Amino acid sequence: MGHQIQFSVDFGDCDPAGIVFYPNFYRWFDRGTHALAHSVGLNMARLRAEHGWICWPLVDTGARFISPAKPGDLLTLESQVTQWGRKTFRVTHTLRHGERLVCEGFEVRIIGAPREDDPDKLRTVELPDWMARQFGATPDPR
Amino acid sequence: MGHQIQFSVDFGDCDPAGIVFYPNFYRWFDRGTHALAHSVGLNMARLRAEHGWICWPLVDTGARFISPAKPGDLLTLESQVTQWGRKTFRVTHTLRHGERLVCEGFEVRIIGAPREDDPDKLRTVELPDWMARQFGATPDPR
Amino acid sequence: MGHQIQFSVDFGDCDPAGIVFYPNFYRWFDRGTHALAHSVGLNMARLRAEHGWICWPLVDTGARFISPAKPGDLLTLESQVTQWGRKTFRVTHTLRHGERLVCEGFEVRIIGAPREDDPDKLRTVELPDWMARQFGATPDPR
Amino acid sequence: MGHQIQFSVDFGDCDPAGIVFYPNFYRWFDRGTHALAHSVGLNMARLRAEHGWICWPLVDTGARFISPAKPGDLLTLESQVTQWGRKTFRVTHTLRHGERLVCEGFEVRIIGAPREDDPDKLRTVELPDWMARQFGATPDPR
Repeated sequence: MGHQIQFSVDFGDCDPAGIVFYPNFYRWFDRGTHALAHSVGLNMARLRAEHGWICWPLVDTGARFISPAKPGDLLTLESQVTQWGRKTFRVTHTLRHGERLVCEGFEVRIIGAPREDDPDKLRTVELPDWMARQFGATPDPR
Repeated sequence: MGHQIQFSVDFGDCDPAGIVFYPNFYRWFDRGTHALAHSVGLNMARLRAEHGWICWPLVDTGARFISPAKPGDLLTLESQVTQWGRKTFRVTHTLRHGERLVCEGFEVRIIGAPREDDPDKLRTVELPDWMARQFGATPDPR
Repeated sequence: MGHQIQFSVDFGDCDPAGIVFYPNFYRWFDRGTHALAHSVGLNMARLRAEHGWICWPLVDTGARFISPAKPGDLLTLESQVTQWGRKTFRVTHTLRHGERLVCEGFEVRIIGAPREDDPDKLRTVELPDWMARQFGATPDPR
Repeated sequence: MGHQIQFSVDFGDCDPAGIVFYPNFYRWFDRGTHALAHSVGLNMARLRAEHGWICWPLVDTGARFISPAKPGDLLTLESQVTQWGRKTFRVTHTLRHGERLVCEGFEVRIIGAPREDDPDKLRTVELPDWMARQFGATPDPR
């Protein structure tokens, strides 16, 4: 069971075909990840201040579209950390309209930190086990 | 070689991390597909009028983010049809800032048509070979 | 008293200055107008089907920004029809973060209908009094 | 004569009515202001570094919509500083499709600086005359 949020599809989220313009699904995935992090007490600003970490840049994403969503549809987004590697973790998202599956997708994210030789660039930080536990995830065996 | 378009990253395309908010990359993929179709003379409205087709709903998408893009960056997007199946085709997108690779991704699209029993729903149409040729693609052997 | 909705500011709604990118305030005004219409039982699709009306294109808009909003802020938007003329009506929007005023603005909207000589163009329809009443507004004296 | 940029309306910029979803006009106004600033050599990052200024938060905006714009329309946006006061300046935007006027609007902007007693909040900075000249504007008589 992941963290759930609900929201309605706006008229302005939809395109001339009358259905959700697909990049908005990714906008909602990002919303889901932030809501999930917030729900388990992970705060981006505090992680930045305490550890110098930038949380959580994306390296890979994907989504399959199963059925369309329209203005006014009340959607339920479920977001869950489903994989926890040494340097990347995966958030899986499922979007439903009632029982009907609308879309499912994923985000692969990292922890970044400013590089010492060039603070405008990021290096990848090894993921701490405590963060996996806080997200309710199980780190991959090493 | 695919079809190329160029555009600049807007201030408003970027998030509090100062880099492009990732759903915008998909917004640009969609722009690239429309520009590619237009460049080969494929017109959505005419395809709708002449064949009753809805061109081209998405069934699958994905993107990997290799390096960040910032406000003012002039990006080059190259879009190309790289696979042509019986009912789906794939558009591959590559986004560069000068020589630097920013992002690469894909869209899997279909041709839809209103279902006879329920015109609000779509059925998938078999892809015509002539459209593959017009896109500069080679249909998969059957 | 207008109709109220609540929502949180997304990370992706904010720009590199770390505050809401201002066009999003208008996106939320549009959301507020649709929520208000829905709350009083006005349905765009039904108005289209029953009367041939396109509800409700915009002719004028404006917004003043009083204080910034940031990712995670829970905002309350209050939307109300504050003027009802012969051919235009005004929706007034007030956005607050708790007691703090964030933004206030307006939309002037019309009812459109396809022109008989050129259905791709719209003519303006005289506003019906019953719609004013349904919105809880008082028509201007004539 | 203001600074001009050109761009096409994307499919995804349009809503189920088939025309531009109006908040996008403001997105383009912001683009026009940044393009204008860039064209006269004003750089936000440098103004921040050299003067500590945050350029240029918005305090008021507005737009009138004269005729609709559709996917594929090539638009010309003209942006110009038309008023320069002691603490605010106005950028006027005009958007055309060929000769046809689509939309006209304005942004009232300021220079902000972090307040000494609370750096998270901004105070308004008196506008320097040299910036008016650089924008091609005439400061109001005092």
